[in-house]
Amino acid sequence: MQTLYVELGDRRYPIFIGSQLDPKQLLEPYILGKQVMIVSNETVAPLYLTHYQDALLTLGKNVATCILPDGEKYKNIEHLNLIFDALLQAGFNRDCTVLALGGGVIGDMAGFASACFQRGVYFIQVPTTLLSQVDSSVGGKTGINHPLGKNMIGAFQQPQVVLADMSQLATLPDRELSAGLAEVIKYALLCDEEFLVWLEAHMDGLIARDESLLAEAVYRSCAHKARIVANDEKEQGERALLNLGHTFGHAIESYLGYGEWLHGEAVATGMVMAADLSQRMGWISEAELERTKKIISRAQLPIICPKIPLDEFLAFMSHDKKVLNGQLRLILLKKIGQAIITKDFDVEAMQHAILANQQ
Amino acid sequence: MQTLYVELGDRRYPIFIGSQLDPKQLLEPYILGKQVMIVSNETVAPLYLTHYQDALLTLGKNVATCILPDGEKYKNIEHLNLIFDALLQAGFNRDCTVLALGGGVIGDMAGFASACFQRGVYFIQVPTTLLSQVDSSVGGKTGINHPLGKNMIGAFQQPQVVLADMSQLATLPDRELSAGLAEVIKYALLCDEEFLVWLEAHMDGLIARDESLLAEAVYRSCAHKARIVANDEKEQGERALLNLGHTFGHAIESYLGYGEWLHGEAVATGMVMAADLSQRMGWISEAELERTKKIISRAQLPIICPKIPLDEFLAFMSHDKKVLNGQLRLILLKKIGQAIITKDFDVEAMQHAILANQQ
Repeated sequence: MQTLYVELGDRRYPIFIGSQLDPKQLLEPYILGKQVMIVSNETVAPLYLTHYQDALLTLGKNVATCILPDGEKYKNIEHLNLIFDALLQAGFNRDCTVLALGGGVIGDMAGFASACFQRGVYFIQVPTTLLSQVDSSVGGKTGINHPLGKNMIGAFQQPQVVLADMSQLATLPDRELSAGLAEVIKYALLCDEEFLVWLEAHMDGLIARDESLLAEAVYRSCAHKARIVANDEKEQGERALLNLGHTFGHAIESYLGYGEWLHGEAVATGMVMAADLSQRMGWISEAELERTKKIISRAQLPIICPKIPLDEFLAFMSHDKKVLNGQLRLILLKKIGQAIITKDFDVEAMQHAILANQQ
Repeated sequence: MQTLYVELGDRRYPIFIGSQLDPKQLLEPYILGKQVMIVSNETVAPLYLTHYQDALLTLGKNVATCILPDGEKYKNIEHLNLIFDALLQAGFNRDCTVLALGGGVIGDMAGFASACFQRGVYFIQVPTTLLSQVDSSVGGKTGINHPLGKNMIGAFQQPQVVLADMSQLATLPDRELSAGLAEVIKYALLCDEEFLVWLEAHMDGLIARDESLLAEAVYRSCAHKARIVANDEKEQGERALLNLGHTFGHAIESYLGYGEWLHGEAVATGMVMAADLSQRMGWISEAELERTKKIISRAQLPIICPKIPLDEFLAFMSHDKKVLNGQLRLILLKKIGQAIITKDFDVEAMQHAILANQQ
């Protein structure tokens, strides 16, 4: 097992990464009250709920559960409210802990609920997808979608502890494994070319779910994210780089309707668009653009999206949170392994980069 | 005009207190982006919306409005969502400001919306009731109600600036003026006996809406709250004292249904119950209990509540946020001008204190 600390002063917390982790031993020091609400979904709960429930009961906790339907389309205010209902029906109070057992959607919703319930209670994350292990469980971003935009309503809420157990990836559908690899590749592209070389060497093993390779990929990705988040918790600067591929990706997800494409799939194609624009700006070579597409393809991820009318694509991009004073900022690649945030890009080139990577 | 600073480090902000304040001059330094969403209600908007809208337009801002129905019963997740709808329909982004123009309900909802929209945008408060001027506009507590409890969902969100204009109290209904005085009296009881003497001398002038007396009462109350909040922003200790009368009061409001009694009215009777229990504990004298009841009565506030079955009253109290590890804590008076938070009280005496102050 490897342990990584996210350094956030008095909200410093550990991420435990390994296989067959023991929740009883690892969680005990981090649950401060008696009451624990496990929030999970209908897919994950039958597989892993009992394991965590039993561990918490052995620790003498008062455990309640809130099982939501599975899917990004339920990441809305109505289903958030079901968590509040469950917390109040259980009679839970200010010293309770909300434990997210599931992927990014469950983490986002349970985290946001824990940020708002009684104006903030304790939060623990047990991410059960590769995507949430490398991305949404680190950094404290939580929230829900709105019909007019993704993640438009939320809070920054740091967990007490994160348990990333590779054994639980065994039951993950292939598409979701790949979606997680999209975020892993993202870290290589944005800040670590050596990691890209490692991924190129081990992509077949990762796709075959070698647990020690997965643990290494999760560790390296989380280490990058933890470092960036610790430098810039509230996303004033460097942290925005983590959104490589996301502004394009959000437009794809918004147009297709949440849930059609997985988030990681949209980010994958979004990264291709960002790399394509970076190439058109003369920052990376055609060979580097092809190298980007190739590693994304080898992770069994889409490098083009369905046909989306340009005006609609641009309208969805303009809802992005990185719009500042009405001006769109994009995360682009100055070179492989070095991303920048910039508003100085050629708008026409951006439109070509979008159109060039559609069906 | 008097200015009071709430000292919260890098989130330090001023409260401007006076009559006929100029919003253009006072707000300008505190609006950091171009976009301002004024959130108000159907009662306040016809009276004061244009005044603020014009000032902001003169400053070159992009102003949108969201007018909610008036009343505590609309302080729920559905109406919160209307603010998110308005923000997204206006195309507002991360650098926008939400300005609350109204009483405590509007402040709580607009503040919570500003805390959650895009995971946090700027917030300005223009409280138009005495209650919100002395209480809910200071301290950063925002939130909404849930059918199972008041203020159960929310966030700590500090404003950039607060404008408390006494001229706007001219249009306030008598019952609401009194409800505001309940919170003013609360500060005297919990930490400032000399202020109680001042209130006893000036209660008739306050009820007659003398603006300079009102400004002085608001300034003194806000100064106490600002000091307490600065010491204890997240309500770990001293800040809990501000809830004098609130645990009993919340039970009254919850039983009657939100909106039947005003919050300040419930707090008034709640303070009588707290004082009554303090007298039964031998901490204050019968004469001091009568003194407490008298100043509350002179503010035209209720000192008894309707008949509420004891088991239901206690059940509502147990939902209170001050329940820690299942143990009820109450704010009681060690003496007039000195409140404490304690779990060491006689439960039977508490029940008598509740029953003794019902119809």
